[in-house]
Amino acid sequence: MPCGFTEEQASFREAALRFARDVLAPAGRRFEAEGAVPLDVRRSMGGLGLIGAEFPAAYGGLGVSHVTSGVILEAISEGDFNTGYIQLLGSLCGMILARYASPEIAAAVLPRICSGQSIVALALTEPQGGSDAAALRLKAVRDGDDYVLTGEKTSISMADQADYAVVFARTGTEAQKARGISAFLVDLEAPGISRTRFHDLGQLAIGRGSIFFDAVRVKAAARLGDEGMGFVQVMQGFDFSRALIGLQCLSIARVSLAETWKYVQERKAFGKPLADNQGVSFPLAEAETMVEAARLLCYQTLAAKDAHAPHTKEAAMCKWWAPKLAFEVVHQCLLMHGHAGYSTELPFEQRLRDVLGLQIGDGTAQIMKLIIAREALRAAA
Amino acid sequence: MPCGFTEEQASFREAALRFARDVLAPAGRRFEAEGAVPLDVRRSMGGLGLIGAEFPAAYGGLGVSHVTSGVILEAISEGDFNTGYIQLLGSLCGMILARYASPEIAAAVLPRICSGQSIVALALTEPQGGSDAAALRLKAVRDGDDYVLTGEKTSISMADQADYAVVFARTGTEAQKARGISAFLVDLEAPGISRTRFHDLGQLAIGRGSIFFDAVRVKAAARLGDEGMGFVQVMQGFDFSRALIGLQCLSIARVSLAETWKYVQERKAFGKPLADNQGVSFPLAEAETMVEAARLLCYQTLAAKDAHAPHTKEAAMCKWWAPKLAFEVVHQCLLMHGHAGYSTELPFEQRLRDVLGLQIGDGTAQIMKLIIAREALRAAA
Amino acid sequence: MPCGFTEEQASFREAALRFARDVLAPAGRRFEAEGAVPLDVRRSMGGLGLIGAEFPAAYGGLGVSHVTSGVILEAISEGDFNTGYIQLLGSLCGMILARYASPEIAAAVLPRICSGQSIVALALTEPQGGSDAAALRLKAVRDGDDYVLTGEKTSISMADQADYAVVFARTGTEAQKARGISAFLVDLEAPGISRTRFHDLGQLAIGRGSIFFDAVRVKAAARLGDEGMGFVQVMQGFDFSRALIGLQCLSIARVSLAETWKYVQERKAFGKPLADNQGVSFPLAEAETMVEAARLLCYQTLAAKDAHAPHTKEAAMCKWWAPKLAFEVVHQCLLMHGHAGYSTELPFEQRLRDVLGLQIGDGTAQIMKLIIAREALRAAA
Amino acid sequence: MPCGFTEEQASFREAALRFARDVLAPAGRRFEAEGAVPLDVRRSMGGLGLIGAEFPAAYGGLGVSHVTSGVILEAISEGDFNTGYIQLLGSLCGMILARYASPEIAAAVLPRICSGQSIVALALTEPQGGSDAAALRLKAVRDGDDYVLTGEKTSISMADQADYAVVFARTGTEAQKARGISAFLVDLEAPGISRTRFHDLGQLAIGRGSIFFDAVRVKAAARLGDEGMGFVQVMQGFDFSRALIGLQCLSIARVSLAETWKYVQERKAFGKPLADNQGVSFPLAEAETMVEAARLLCYQTLAAKDAHAPHTKEAAMCKWWAPKLAFEVVHQCLLMHGHAGYSTELPFEQRLRDVLGLQIGDGTAQIMKLIIAREALRAAA
Repeated sequence: MPCGFTEEQASFREAALRFARDVLAPAGRRFEAEGAVPLDVRRSMGGLGLIGAEFPAAYGGLGVSHVTSGVILEAISEGDFNTGYIQLLGSLCGMILARYASPEIAAAVLPRICSGQSIVALALTEPQGGSDAAALRLKAVRDGDDYVLTGEKTSISMADQADYAVVFARTGTEAQKARGISAFLVDLEAPGISRTRFHDLGQLAIGRGSIFFDAVRVKAAARLGDEGMGFVQVMQGFDFSRALIGLQCLSIARVSLAETWKYVQERKAFGKPLADNQGVSFPLAEAETMVEAARLLCYQTLAAKDAHAPHTKEAAMCKWWAPKLAFEVVHQCLLMHGHAGYSTELPFEQRLRDVLGLQIGDGTAQIMKLIIAREALRAAA
Repeated sequence: MPCGFTEEQASFREAALRFARDVLAPAGRRFEAEGAVPLDVRRSMGGLGLIGAEFPAAYGGLGVSHVTSGVILEAISEGDFNTGYIQLLGSLCGMILARYASPEIAAAVLPRICSGQSIVALALTEPQGGSDAAALRLKAVRDGDDYVLTGEKTSISMADQADYAVVFARTGTEAQKARGISAFLVDLEAPGISRTRFHDLGQLAIGRGSIFFDAVRVKAAARLGDEGMGFVQVMQGFDFSRALIGLQCLSIARVSLAETWKYVQERKAFGKPLADNQGVSFPLAEAETMVEAARLLCYQTLAAKDAHAPHTKEAAMCKWWAPKLAFEVVHQCLLMHGHAGYSTELPFEQRLRDVLGLQIGDGTAQIMKLIIAREALRAAA
Repeated sequence: MPCGFTEEQASFREAALRFARDVLAPAGRRFEAEGAVPLDVRRSMGGLGLIGAEFPAAYGGLGVSHVTSGVILEAISEGDFNTGYIQLLGSLCGMILARYASPEIAAAVLPRICSGQSIVALALTEPQGGSDAAALRLKAVRDGDDYVLTGEKTSISMADQADYAVVFARTGTEAQKARGISAFLVDLEAPGISRTRFHDLGQLAIGRGSIFFDAVRVKAAARLGDEGMGFVQVMQGFDFSRALIGLQCLSIARVSLAETWKYVQERKAFGKPLADNQGVSFPLAEAETMVEAARLLCYQTLAAKDAHAPHTKEAAMCKWWAPKLAFEVVHQCLLMHGHAGYSTELPFEQRLRDVLGLQIGDGTAQIMKLIIAREALRAAA
Repeated sequence: MPCGFTEEQASFREAALRFARDVLAPAGRRFEAEGAVPLDVRRSMGGLGLIGAEFPAAYGGLGVSHVTSGVILEAISEGDFNTGYIQLLGSLCGMILARYASPEIAAAVLPRICSGQSIVALALTEPQGGSDAAALRLKAVRDGDDYVLTGEKTSISMADQADYAVVFARTGTEAQKARGISAFLVDLEAPGISRTRFHDLGQLAIGRGSIFFDAVRVKAAARLGDEGMGFVQVMQGFDFSRALIGLQCLSIARVSLAETWKYVQERKAFGKPLADNQGVSFPLAEAETMVEAARLLCYQTLAAKDAHAPHTKEAAMCKWWAPKLAFEVVHQCLLMHGHAGYSTELPFEQRLRDVLGLQIGDGTAQIMKLIIAREALRAAA
């Protein structure tokens, strides 16, 4: 694809697509009804090497590039959007651990992510602050070899399913703003933790909820990176996950488009295939164009990450545009199927509900445009 | 409003708004869960004169204009979209009966619509043909004083709740195409009728389903209009209902906007109200503009109907644009509320699901644009 | 139209359309080449009662409503956009004079506007400040019975053609910001005045330029409104001119659409009329819808002005949307004509250049959206 | 850039950019006024190896890839859009000659293209047929060793400047449709040829006009490809030029964006830089995103060409979207500069006029969407 997939990438894509079509696509509705992607499905996926493939081999991974990780994510998400998110979350939190966790913790947790056994959530947002790091209130107070965490994280994906969470907590003063935040890996079975799940429109197999910390003790060794550096260090360098989100969203736009081209070719109205109407085929042709271009943007961003080139602006571009575009394309494809598209018999309505969540999660379009503007103004100065 | 509401209209609006806010708005979720707007709610609405107000006084109505009917619909839908549809369906089918039913039938059924007691569905579309009149297959065979109906209607709103249906059936040959279709008022409790409900993304209090006719006997007196004239006569003159659909959709866009302006004024992020961000306020300002303009277009179309002026083109404009715009505005408002907008705690996700149905029902955007083009080309010739 | 034109409006429309088609449409290119709408054309227009028709009869007008003035403007602009602007400017500056000038000045100048003899420009913007009233620097210093004006106005429409200008000058201190500004009627033949014309992309028959004031003496009696009240008083109440701008812009969108429908019906490609392609007819159908809705919004705003109802928000809606929409529609129509549309043989390229100017003049889209947001937030509070 | 520029590409980009900034950018207005890019400028460009760099070395080229040719085009067009077109036309017609002309002709003409000495036009469209190959009427009748050409080509870029033209003429019957067309290289100084120039909105340094053929004799050896194969053979394989057009258009979008970011950072209004307004910076951020994505799509298409992979669909995507997007972005940048952007003092108005021409030339958006749909339906079947 962009400049062509390598042989390795093509082979990963094939394996992931087969799994997506055979296992995931028929089960997406069931995962939604059960509120989870079952452990055995995660394990099968892990067994195929489809989770955390970019982790170092020492930690259970295959050391592939971020582009290749994107190839895998894209293929999985074509089968089920929500399962794709598990791969993405594994990549994001896994790479944080690979870089900032102690070797012992990394060796313990990363292979469990790779195998599909464990889920690590990212616990950043809080009730008041949203994604404003300066305003985080959850406290981590040093007490001997431990930190004691007290407070609430909310709007956390997989809050009630995850086994661990990367938790951002205030170890410094409020006046230190973002520079008073440290990151920790927390076992979510620890005493003092309770969790809830919200009722959302979509992403029901993922779930979103709150995690409450009531004097939860965490070993100091579980701190990720230096104290006070949770934001300026640990969160740095993970812009690339926005490109992954882009690919995840675009994958269901692409699969929806493919199904819709097929449908409008077969379905007849007023004596001819729907596709013979430019009012039908042109919006689809426009969608093809945009989706292809947005996909290239995502892969380009991952390639920049792999090349250690700056990509903050590009990642923000992926994040605001791809989920928006995917929502619009799925919406369009749903409409093209008429009332059948509106019913639960076809997958479009679930996709519409699912993808909408990623227009919100991981930063709004407004935040992303601020980042793009900041970077562009810096370049223009 | 457009050129100002009359005193009568303002008074209807006030009464309907009060009912919408006090009774409907708090209950919309319940109606959805129950799969119906309860009979007592419909009766209360009828008791206030809010259903079929444009019917002749002889039939239980108040003889108001179609603009006034739009004013009522708009206010009701601000409280609950689905309840609005009951008013709309009452207007549409009621006016068909008022014009084409025998005086006996009109006198029997119309007051029941007005009181909220009975629902009359519009049974037009069939599994194969969609809205292509020429392709309708449900047969009505004359047998003495009766017609015998056999076939299937599908995608019928309120199929399993309605008491009656206006049914379009083929009394002529297939070669006669649209000119072989007659309309009937059918009691849906008649022997030989069975009904199903589909599982849809939204409009759950309305429901959509199939009605099966297995040799259902209908009195010839229940035919609406002349034989073979179901399409060219009975369906004529009801373009105005597309303007009503427009107002119904725009009403939830308007109420969503009003709630969102309030929210972004109150909610703070990064130390200031969200509304201080032009990235927040400008999309809302654009939405205000479009919604206001689309609303004027709907009222203008109803005013043309009241003035016996042509409005086929205008009605088609309302139908493709207003539901699309309303969907986009509700989507935007949902996003502005962040994850809260994505949850079932706030009304946006239901509105999004509900309004989407009217981008499909009563004719796709493509059909509407064909009508506009046909009318514009005729004028240009 | 919106709720129907009155008989008077229809009659004005007919007269103005006849003039537009017979006199203006064939001459638009010539006006552009000459850089002016010739005096004899303005006089003919005045002779037909088409300028300043809303002025009081005592001042040469006919006392018609603002809606009727919009009807006239729309019809004139269908013939030539730039001539339309002369009518608009006459209405705006004339109504300012009718309200704030001394009776002597009003009696002297207004009939000259009505007859087409004189042009009154609106001189507000300055090199540094743009439309930021608080930052205006042109000084008016009281000296006996006179004020002495020194400074520069720039970006003034018709700067080098106008006979008079309504000039906003600082009579107070800079600290008084907008409350230190007074308005004056200035004879542009007065000693100390010099003028230039810029080279613009369009509106070449109108022209835009600077007016330099080098100690220009103006009688105190020529002050419009109270001292220091140029902004808070004189500029108040003229929001409605934004709706007029909307109608002016939409008029060329409408005439472009009408011509394009005709063209795509007649022109054949690949063996059938262009219009048979939904890829051609659907964008036009969408444009028809938007243009009609935007037009209703403009008329609704003028009706609110006539009814002394608030319309600041509505006027801002007209100003940002109608010129943008008109630009897009003219662009679309130009493209539909292929290379012929790109050449100077057809009127589309001039219209495109002309209408673009009104996306900028009289306040940018950004300013308008700020106004809409301010008004909507006030209503939501 | 897309997967990174190679060192060779970066070096070409640098050389071309220097030429663009030093020589072209200051002269674009002059070229427009003179109606041509002067011969000495073309020669300088040729001397730097910037024309026909992808031609085989034997013919004066450097054998670079199509991607590299795109890199050069993009850089040149940043300086002057119209000069960019000369490079593009050289690539397109040169590669046709390199592939289909006799070695003698190729050896004679290609080095002249490379050096900037000669221009070869592409003469396809005719007054009636537009780009419908089946309808071409210009006749080429075999007469001994010659063909005799009679007819008219119209809407030909550089018609009155070019030295040669690739002319498509009917050697077969009308019933043979596209399979009766042959291609010829014609010396435009030959007896019997006359030429005109049209008056267009933009691309004034390029020009567009008609070429009339009155019994023009052409040697049979000047036929390109087999008789009757002008379309099915010679026009095949040149889809990639649509990606070049995309890059040409996007280059002025990019340079406009860069200038606008700088401007909004420096220009203050209401006491702060324009860029502090999200209403200013967000549309620019959105434009950055789209332009970057569209650019990747163009490069991806060229890379597919270089890899001998299918790219007809991708080329059509580039052609409809990139010129449209570039027009919109230049329009947006013009507006951001206020009235200054509307004047001829800044380059935006020329760019707007220039880029509009490529929304039309080389196939409308509708044609491109038909191609995309055809390819997508084939893939879906």
